[in-house]
Amino acid sequence: MIASNRGPVTFRADGSGSLTPVHGAGGLVSSLGPMIEGTGATWVAAAMSDADRRAAALGTVDTDGYHYRCLAMDPETYRLAYDVVSNATLWFLHHRLFDLARTPAIDRQWREAWDAYRRVNRRFAEAVMEEAGEGATVLLQDYHLALVGTWLRRERPDLRAVHFTHTPFCEPSDLRVLPDDVAAELLTGMADNGACGFHTARWAEGFARCCDAVLGRRPPIFVAPLAPDGESLAEVARSPGCVEARRHVLDQVGGRRIVLRVDRLELSKNLLRGFLAFEELLRRRPDWLGRVVFVCLAYPSRENLAEYQAYRRDVEDLAGRINGQWGSGDWTPILLETEDDYVRSVAALQCYDVLLVNPVRDGLNLVAKEGPLVNANDGVLALSREAGVWDELAGLALELNPFDVAGMADVLESALDMPPGERRAHASAVREAAARRTPRDWLDDQLAAAGALR
Amino acid sequence: MIASNRGPVTFRADGSGSLTPVHGAGGLVSSLGPMIEGTGATWVAAAMSDADRRAAALGTVDTDGYHYRCLAMDPETYRLAYDVVSNATLWFLHHRLFDLARTPAIDRQWREAWDAYRRVNRRFAEAVMEEAGEGATVLLQDYHLALVGTWLRRERPDLRAVHFTHTPFCEPSDLRVLPDDVAAELLTGMADNGACGFHTARWAEGFARCCDAVLGRRPPIFVAPLAPDGESLAEVARSPGCVEARRHVLDQVGGRRIVLRVDRLELSKNLLRGFLAFEELLRRRPDWLGRVVFVCLAYPSRENLAEYQAYRRDVEDLAGRINGQWGSGDWTPILLETEDDYVRSVAALQCYDVLLVNPVRDGLNLVAKEGPLVNANDGVLALSREAGVWDELAGLALELNPFDVAGMADVLESALDMPPGERRAHASAVREAAARRTPRDWLDDQLAAAGALR
Repeated sequence: MIASNRGPVTFRADGSGSLTPVHGAGGLVSSLGPMIEGTGATWVAAAMSDADRRAAALGTVDTDGYHYRCLAMDPETYRLAYDVVSNATLWFLHHRLFDLARTPAIDRQWREAWDAYRRVNRRFAEAVMEEAGEGATVLLQDYHLALVGTWLRRERPDLRAVHFTHTPFCEPSDLRVLPDDVAAELLTGMADNGACGFHTARWAEGFARCCDAVLGRRPPIFVAPLAPDGESLAEVARSPGCVEARRHVLDQVGGRRIVLRVDRLELSKNLLRGFLAFEELLRRRPDWLGRVVFVCLAYPSRENLAEYQAYRRDVEDLAGRINGQWGSGDWTPILLETEDDYVRSVAALQCYDVLLVNPVRDGLNLVAKEGPLVNANDGVLALSREAGVWDELAGLALELNPFDVAGMADVLESALDMPPGERRAHASAVREAAARRTPRDWLDDQLAAAGALR
Repeated sequence: MIASNRGPVTFRADGSGSLTPVHGAGGLVSSLGPMIEGTGATWVAAAMSDADRRAAALGTVDTDGYHYRCLAMDPETYRLAYDVVSNATLWFLHHRLFDLARTPAIDRQWREAWDAYRRVNRRFAEAVMEEAGEGATVLLQDYHLALVGTWLRRERPDLRAVHFTHTPFCEPSDLRVLPDDVAAELLTGMADNGACGFHTARWAEGFARCCDAVLGRRPPIFVAPLAPDGESLAEVARSPGCVEARRHVLDQVGGRRIVLRVDRLELSKNLLRGFLAFEELLRRRPDWLGRVVFVCLAYPSRENLAEYQAYRRDVEDLAGRINGQWGSGDWTPILLETEDDYVRSVAALQCYDVLLVNPVRDGLNLVAKEGPLVNANDGVLALSREAGVWDELAGLALELNPFDVAGMADVLESALDMPPGERRAHASAVREAAARRTPRDWLDDQLAAAGALR
């Protein structure tokens, strides 16, 4: 069994009101979905839309050789759990995004949201227990479902439950922002699983230290980095739509060199300092004026949260300011595209000269593996040391300190100046490392962690 | 010898242009100043004003039985070192005040400021070396002077140099925001002293872990909490000016209970959540409406920095909003006073029912010891567990998690509801703990650490 916040499909209602399942989006779902088809597994997830809620009322749906159980929840309860706790608290905590002079403020409303988070987790736990056969393996995905393990352990000790975290994990000094009872409930919920998995040793160690500090016990912990599905990427890259999109991107940049980034429009992704580093490159190196374009594909995310609205404005303003100051009649230094288009993203990844992946903190960052896998231009990967994927690519990718604008400009300079032979060797070494694991390896690591429980 | 950013005196020019020394302000200076008088020591500090710079041109000044060497520096160099590096970077780093999606941005200008910081530290090192006799003990104070030790070690290995940090110290995971060369230079500058001191074990451990992670070596480290001078506080409290100020405070609150805070208007002090917790108290407990006043003495600080200007606006707006929403004709719930007045602060400390000390992070917090020492009302101390002084008062003061607005309201409620007998016992236990150490103990700990170097 799988349980995750977002499901592998989402439902769409046509004019006559009948419901059609369509494949969902998101890194987890697109990696895990294809592997679950035909396995007879059951997947539990939250309803995201009215159509999902209608589908949920029908009970478990059989689709593509597995069972899908969509959970309809009271929209306000779900909103409090998802927006206030999962996204504005736990995400911020693990990514160190709080502006601690002001946030978080754990007030009465926050306590109500925590209670909603608990109820959403309880709802997942009940659905899992209803669906799970004796001794079943249950793979709980991510920080939205941190409390489920406690009920499974108490009420269904026959199950083999594993929790996998896709974000970073905080340190004990960060965790102190939460009330003690909340921190303990959260860690207990995770530690009550048979094992807890993370994308990299650094996050696993943070979790272990938090458990030591707060609980005085640790569950078994494993490290299993996710990887993209190279074959399905290659298939998209070969598709006529992608060929067309690539032609369009190349038209837009008009033969200039391409610095690319592909991200959600997300505070942890560090778009602002990326622009500033690019501007510093232009300031230092007038020889690049008019000869390089920063293609920034940044897809809006969590638009309910005021922090994300403000960040989006800042990103658009800064790109506009830099384009106004440095651009010329026929050259726009930064092409900022905010309309989500997966095929265009793959097309752009095929063409980059430099791929900039500079998050301030990131659970893994799949783009840093996807780019090298599909790039056909001996492109250079400039990678933040604060991304989980750094461990797998250290010594191969060019290292970025994401807070160091001047240092990132140095790296962009070296990347653009790199001679062709060196680029080829770099790209091939990074590609090889990025191809070392598959989504199947990641799934197998979780199943092995579950299997080892007996 | 002592070296610190601010000196024990500052100079004032009268109408005829002649210079008069007046005693400086600030926790360090008011604690250390009186102990240095008559010792024949030399104190090196930076010029703060034009009059200081004129005094600096005269060389070392003999005053109150010690020598004072004031250093005039190029104002722009000093501004870059003080505002950009010391206050907007190192202070934010150690207090965890960065909004990491945006700050810090280590750009070209920041690198220039780092170079200025290095030059200011070099200037201090040169003055110390000029003034110091063979084998002299040198007590370097605080984060403004983190690099001095390296030059002393290299050029004057005969000196016994100790560095004392008055702020918290960050963890290795925080330190990663700095470029590697900067982090290494900073830690080396401190580790090149004979010993490094901190107000509490938690900051000492943070520093030790940073040294291990970056340098692979540690200097001797000691813990020596500062304490207020109880006698001089008592003297101020007895003074006619203070008696008058106390009468004025009591008039203002008109017989109501007093929740008090006394702080610089500083991001780490957590004024906003303090107001929100007080508002939550009013919301929960209508019986306190009109019967309690939150006296907030908050003295402007670092008004050059945009972050502090914005914070001050937010503090004033929130106090105004709460007063508008909850106040009545004859009752203003929050009395926010922003004009610096030391005697009034002492007067208010004598009268509080509850002293709220809720920083998000604080090197020590002297007010949490000063209050209990002078309070004559069996007042209750509500103290953040993130203040360095927490270690000395844990189990005695009421514990606050400064991020937990609802939890702080709980504590304010208990404090106001505490029966007289319990208040008396609480106040007396806290007073005893606060009186356990004197400024002399703190100085002796530094001298002992220096003495142990041979």
